[in-house]
Order: sequence, then C-alpha cells, then structure tokens
Amino acid sequence: MKISTMAVIMAMTDEAKPFIEALELKKLACGLGDALPMEVYTGSVEGANLIVVVGGKDQRFGVDNVATQPATLSAYLAIEQFKPDLLINAGTAGGFKAKGAEIGDVYIGSGAIRFHDRRIPIPGFDGYGVGSYKTPDVDKVAEVLGLKKGVVSTGNSLDMTPEDQRMIEANQGAVKEMEAAAIAWVAELYDIPLVALKAITDLVDTDTPTQDEFMQNLKFASERLQKKLTDAVHCFAGEGIA
Amino acid sequence: MKISTMAVIMAMTDEAKPFIEALELKKLACGLGDALPMEVYTGSVEGANLIVVVGGKDQRFGVDNVATQPATLSAYLAIEQFKPDLLINAGTAGGFKAKGAEIGDVYIGSGAIRFHDRRIPIPGFDGYGVGSYKTPDVDKVAEVLGLKKGVVSTGNSLDMTPEDQRMIEANQGAVKEMEAAAIAWVAELYDIPLVALKAITDLVDTDTPTQDEFMQNLKFASERLQKKLTDAVHCFAGEGIA
Repeated sequence: MKISTMAVIMAMTDEAKPFIEALELKKLACGLGDALPMEVYTGSVEGANLIVVVGGKDQRFGVDNVATQPATLSAYLAIEQFKPDLLINAGTAGGFKAKGAEIGDVYIGSGAIRFHDRRIPIPGFDGYGVGSYKTPDVDKVAEVLGLKKGVVSTGNSLDMTPEDQRMIEANQGAVKEMEAAAIAWVAELYDIPLVALKAITDLVDTDTPTQDEFMQNLKFASERLQKKLTDAVHCFAGEGIA
Repeated sequence: MKISTMAVIMAMTDEAKPFIEALELKKLACGLGDALPMEVYTGSVEGANLIVVVGGKDQRFGVDNVATQPATLSAYLAIEQFKPDLLINAGTAGGFKAKGAEIGDVYIGSGAIRFHDRRIPIPGFDGYGVGSYKTPDVDKVAEVLGLKKGVVSTGNSLDMTPEDQRMIEANQGAVKEMEAAAIAWVAELYDIPLVALKAITDLVDTDTPTQDEFMQNLKFASERLQKKLTDAVHCFAGEGIA
C-alpha cells in the first residue's frame, strides 16, 4: 500500500525531540484544540505528509501525558483531523534480558499488540481486555532497517507487578510499554494499520529499578529511536507497507 | 450553577438500559461517528438537555467497551459534540465491606477521583499517575438523595491484585471501578464538573470472586442506579450544582 499521510503518536517530549529536529518539522499553532495539551508537528518525507502528535504536559503536574488515556485521544484526533493511511506509535520501552534485549535496541511490533493490565475474568471480556490487536506484516522493514521484532505489551504502569509479569508472559510480550494497545484499539476501529516502534531504555527482568534505568537511558534510547524512525518513515513513504 | 446540558457517560448497556427506558430517551442514529461503537441517547429533564453516551460493543469480542480507553473517548466526544456544563459518570462498581458498603448501595464520588493502576515511580509522574481529580461539592445532593459518599478509585481490571489493594488504600478509595478517573481527566481539561454515581455490585474485600458477584448483582445494582440517577438528574436540572 502506497502511503500518502503518516501520523506518528509519541507520548514524551524527550522521546520526540530528536526526531522532530532531525526532520525539521514545524509546530502547528492550533495543536489538536484549545483545551487539549497535545502538540502537533508537520512536515513531509518523500512526498508523503508526516504528522507527529506529542502528548504534551499535564497542567497540574508538569510532566508528559503518558499512559493509555492521552494516547487514545491522540490517536483518535490524529485520525479524524489528518486522515492518515498509516499510524506509527514510537517511543521508549522496557525489554527482557531473557529474550535477548539490550539497551538501545529498537523493536518493531510484530505478531500482536496486547494489554497486560486489563484483567476482566468474564467470558468475552477476558479477550477484550487483552485486545490482541493485529500488526501489519513488518518482516521486510524489520530486515531492511535492522529492527528486532516482537509482541508489544501495554500497561498503565512503569513498574511490573507479579501479575503484570504473568500477563506479559501469557501475551508473549517482548516489549513492555504504556501506550501502543490503546492506539491499536483506535486504529482497529478505523481499520488503519499501526506500526509500533519502541527503543529499549531498561531491562525489566533485571535487578536495577526500572525508573532508574529509564531516566538514565532515555536520551540514548530516544536518539536510537530517532534514527530508526527516520529510516522507517522514509521506507514507508517510498515503498509503502505490505 | 444552573445546568443547561448534562452528559451521562456509561460503559455498559445493562447498566444504562433501565435509565434510558425510565426517562424514555431517544437513540441518536448517528451516534458519535460512523467508526465509533458508542451509542447516544437524548432527552430532557426539567428544561435541561440530557445526553447519555453508552460505550457500545466491541466488534470482535461482542462485549461492552469497558475500561478507561473508551471512557476517555466518550467523555471527549460528549464534551465536544454536546457542550455539557455537567458530566455524570454512572455505572456499577465494587465496594468494601470494611467501609460499610452493601450490595446495591449507590455512592457519589466525593473528595477525589483517583487511578490505582498507573504506578509511575518518578517524581511528578507519580502524582500524575494517581491523578487525584477534584469532585464538585456533593454534600447536599448526597443528603437529599440518600447516597453514600466516597473517593472513587479507577483501574482497568475487574479483579484486585495486592498492589491494586495497596494503591486503593493509599487513595482512600471507597469505590473501585473502571472508568471514572479517565473521564475526570478529560473533564479537568475542559474545566467541567464531573459527578460519579456508582452502584455496588460486589464487595471486593470478601471471599466471593468479584466476577461471580458482579454478574449476579448487575441487574439489581443497575435498577438501584437508575433510581438514584433519575433523582440526581432531576436535582441537577432543577437546582443546579454547587
């Protein structure tokens, strides 16, 4: 499929800044609406329109609007306002040493995108809770760009409780992050393919507390993410997506 | 404050049906947009416009769109499309025997509405994760309508892990449910008061599995909810909210 408009959804300013600067994107003054904190940047890549929506800051706490609620709204508004034919959710994430992840690796969502913190043990609701949103065929782009592939597993917390861990294992999750499944739910409603691109800041199955490793590696991982995301948007704009 | 338009956000059809029937609300054919599963019902109460947004069904799983992602979108669209001056999130919830809750009790959110499943142990992000959205002064309406008052605590799961329990205790949560804090986040962005009205289907601090008690008491609690919600919309339409 040839791509005419790509919308990239990113939660954190620090994750997005290297990419916005590298592609010299311009900030849209109106954002997504006066009441909303999201920031919008636009540009073009090989003839395709490129939109980046960043979550912006929480008014009271002054921190980035992470987790699934802002991501849901960003995805919905990116779709309604810019009519993209491809969504990309780019950001940082936790990886698993046991699955061969290293700090700075960039994964592309493959197989499925699932929730690990929506446990609803009633028939039908259990499957709905996990979601298991499909991913496009990313084998070729993963090979060309040197990306690791894996199931992305989403929850609203940075830490990992034993129950989260059990669910991530059941999800066959290789990447643990906080937004992708919410965006995938909206993408499914509109039947728009979603590519998840996640750079590893921390290894969640080691003894170092996630928050320490995350803060320490955020800049490095965001630079790595920028390079692969730049390659990816060029690839999608030029060759499209399967 | 005199109310001219109230928007009631409800996740489940079974929760909403008694209220929609009792007030003879009419279904809006266009809903919230072609791609979206939400259903919209409209009517009027004592001269005020009444809008009810119900989450609708998931296409793949055939179950109600519960949890915080659909609730976020319902709240946003209810606000943008109908410009309410009061939001009400009505539904069923878990209560705590230790706090004196009984099946069928209807609580009104008082003190705060908080998340218990967004654990982000980084300064600033920790407070953002919990949210602590303010509630309007509901003392009078609680007294007039015979409602219990308490902090509403929101998470994306029906069950309660030890970590959830610890967070709910830290939240001083009296009501455990799955949507209110997401709606409260959107309400705060638009500076619209949010009243949470929650009927207790199950006592989460007893040995009976939540899902069994929930299914068993859903109809009874939804009938109880209908009565109190009907009283509440009449009260708000007539006397307004502090």
